[in-house]
Amino acid sequence: MLIEAGLLLIPAVTGLICHEQASFRAFLISALAAAAAGGLLSLVRTRGSNIYAREGFAIVGLSWIMLSLFGCLPFIISGQIPDFADAFFETVSGFTTTGSSILTDIEALDKSMLLWRSFTHWVGGMGVLVFAMIIIPLGGKRSMHLLRAESPGPSSGKLVPKMRDTATILYGIYIALSVILLIFLMAGGMPLFDSLINVFGTAGTGGFSNHGASIAYYDSKYFEIVIGIFMLIFGVNFNVYFLLLLRRFRAAAGNEELHWYLGIVAFAVITIALNINSMFGSFREAVRYSFFQVSSVITTTGFATADFDQWPQYSRTLLILLMFVGACAGSTGGGLKVSRLILLIRTALRGVRRQIHSRSVESIRFGGQIIEEETISTCLIYLVIYLMIILASTLLISFDNFSFEANVTAVISCINNIGPGLGMVGPAGNFSAYSAASKLILSFDMLAGRLELFPILMLFAPSAWRR
Amino acid sequence: MLIEAGLLLIPAVTGLICHEQASFRAFLISALAAAAAGGLLSLVRTRGSNIYAREGFAIVGLSWIMLSLFGCLPFIISGQIPDFADAFFETVSGFTTTGSSILTDIEALDKSMLLWRSFTHWVGGMGVLVFAMIIIPLGGKRSMHLLRAESPGPSSGKLVPKMRDTATILYGIYIALSVILLIFLMAGGMPLFDSLINVFGTAGTGGFSNHGASIAYYDSKYFEIVIGIFMLIFGVNFNVYFLLLLRRFRAAAGNEELHWYLGIVAFAVITIALNINSMFGSFREAVRYSFFQVSSVITTTGFATADFDQWPQYSRTLLILLMFVGACAGSTGGGLKVSRLILLIRTALRGVRRQIHSRSVESIRFGGQIIEEETISTCLIYLVIYLMIILASTLLISFDNFSFEANVTAVISCINNIGPGLGMVGPAGNFSAYSAASKLILSFDMLAGRLELFPILMLFAPSAWRR
Repeated sequence: MLIEAGLLLIPAVTGLICHEQASFRAFLISALAAAAAGGLLSLVRTRGSNIYAREGFAIVGLSWIMLSLFGCLPFIISGQIPDFADAFFETVSGFTTTGSSILTDIEALDKSMLLWRSFTHWVGGMGVLVFAMIIIPLGGKRSMHLLRAESPGPSSGKLVPKMRDTATILYGIYIALSVILLIFLMAGGMPLFDSLINVFGTAGTGGFSNHGASIAYYDSKYFEIVIGIFMLIFGVNFNVYFLLLLRRFRAAAGNEELHWYLGIVAFAVITIALNINSMFGSFREAVRYSFFQVSSVITTTGFATADFDQWPQYSRTLLILLMFVGACAGSTGGGLKVSRLILLIRTALRGVRRQIHSRSVESIRFGGQIIEEETISTCLIYLVIYLMIILASTLLISFDNFSFEANVTAVISCINNIGPGLGMVGPAGNFSAYSAASKLILSFDMLAGRLELFPILMLFAPSAWRR
Repeated sequence: MLIEAGLLLIPAVTGLICHEQASFRAFLISALAAAAAGGLLSLVRTRGSNIYAREGFAIVGLSWIMLSLFGCLPFIISGQIPDFADAFFETVSGFTTTGSSILTDIEALDKSMLLWRSFTHWVGGMGVLVFAMIIIPLGGKRSMHLLRAESPGPSSGKLVPKMRDTATILYGIYIALSVILLIFLMAGGMPLFDSLINVFGTAGTGGFSNHGASIAYYDSKYFEIVIGIFMLIFGVNFNVYFLLLLRRFRAAAGNEELHWYLGIVAFAVITIALNINSMFGSFREAVRYSFFQVSSVITTTGFATADFDQWPQYSRTLLILLMFVGACAGSTGGGLKVSRLILLIRTALRGVRRQIHSRSVESIRFGGQIIEEETISTCLIYLVIYLMIILASTLLISFDNFSFEANVTAVISCINNIGPGLGMVGPAGNFSAYSAASKLILSFDMLAGRLELFPILMLFAPSAWRR
């Protein structure tokens, strides 16, 4: 809460510079509220301070809900997004790096509001508790469960023995890559404000833009290609960059998840380009549009340079499938994650072989290592819960009576932290038409997806609250 | 093949009676072809005659493909469905008790053709190899793997020690229930031919009708209620009826899967009736329409008395979810099966608890018994493969460029052996617009769904063909 209070001062200063009086005041009040909440909470003394899996999940789950509740205050206080469900949805969409929006006219917002909205992407991308760990010293064991609960992927490794150092390295790489992207954008002539917004949206793989037309607004091949490539870069496991820093190039290049990730991207870019070829002037142009959209969707960013809702059915369907795939574990991207998907496919193929040769014993390998059966079992259960949430959410939001296609893809887009879906919620549409209840359900989906289910689900499990 | 040759004589006789010369000849030629194939195959001598899991799967998978190939001959030869992909799709849809049709004008078909089309439902419902086991004496161990590969559900039990007796009891119950339904329909004034067609469609939970309007054609509350109830009856595990025959009423009533099945039906009927209430004259009428459609979809029959594609979004979505649920294990219905679904949900909930309390050991119970971890693991893998097939099929048929909604629901409807989907393939539509390639993919889905994946998948597994 105290960190959020500090973060809220950044858009406050922007408001001051841009002479946005009402927004400036709203940010100041929100910062004070967050600081007061943080101050009060720090007075609470707890017995015992060990953090196990349960406590790690609870801290992360509750923190993200609190962050979103206080993070949406500026929108409500300033009246720029007066409705609570709308403001909460937009803030959750920001922190979870989803990028789905309820705004029908993005350009009407104050600049400071647009900055805060996009800044939540950047904060949520790497994880706010990972950041807290750099500032607040915690014992190694205690911080491990926190990092594990907030970082994406089937299993999260430490880069170095000390958790605090791991967190520092992760944020160091994150900041360095963000600064490089900023330089690239400004070198191309993009104004500072727009550059910052797009850096936040790209680095956090969020996708909020300050223009209704998203990246298509700039109508620039340079920006399209730079952002397209950087989205892919932020979708890679940050361990790879750490290995590069250590000059262990062979180990970095040998990352199996990276190979699958790039392979899937290449396959999707080429087949979609062939599919949409006739809509564009040349195959080269089709590849460019296809590359940007594939990169945007598989990394779960959600930026758009074209309305893919108008593309032929194969392209639309493949993009929906890519939403499930998601980026690499240990990146800022969402979705199931490439490694989890490969594990599931290998487990399924082993299952077929086991049915045929009943006594075969075979272990599953990934990245040159034998994967523990415990990890595989957790992956399978993850998939079941994930599907149950998708189906239940689709049913619940169907009460609003919008099309089946819009409902299904809205849920898929939210739980995988993408942004746009198809139809009404496509790249040219938005989520404003849904009822307040549906917006809260979709907010739940976004949080569940970003935190990989368990931290949010355990808040609803009676057994978690027992002593 | 020899059994199929015999079965083909039934519509041949119908053709003779109805003076359908061309159809009569087509059935006779097809019967001769099947008999010839069967005769030739029986000349092949194999070394060793043990049937293990692998052989059981292979026999069932290949038999069903052969059955469908020879079963579609009459349609092609008579010219009533001249195209191979169409005829094959229609026949697979028949044998797998799916009920999806490529026919745009059902009433234009010869009576003998309509009878054969529906008769395949009845044959496929209980399983043609189960029937073969009654006629051909096989050792106990050998027939076990056959029965297991052809019967639906996560685990199939023997009713009595001897497999041949189990098969006889199953067919005995099946025939008895079919005859009772026939009497009910004829007592209500339905002509014999229509009664037979509807008995085949209901008993096999198939859904082919001899009228384009399906059951709505009769415009009769009596037929609607009788068929609605009998669909539910054929969706119950046949073990329950066996227990009733043994007068073990308490054991029959205590079947846990039955409770969940009826509970899901009750929930769906009531909430859909509330949702569609305004479309009908009274709540009572809404309940009647809702009951018939819920019964038709959860049992995977696919009959219709109303065009549910026109219903509000909640009803459409819930019906799609019910397609996944399916009927009880050990019934003639398809889908995931209620028991498999409950197992998956319980496993998921245990997974959440395990994440919270890392050292908890807990076993999963169903029907008062502890379920083996092996069975649970197979269920999870089943789900993964099932999803992979759904996603891959949806992508492949998207090349035809029909709507996302139609494509997704066509695949869901086919793999779960339902019949209709939404949109173009809704109760008022059909599958004729799809390309030949898509029809073959959907045929694969129907076979994979009916035989519960492994017998069909193993035909594609290289390791299955090794000595």
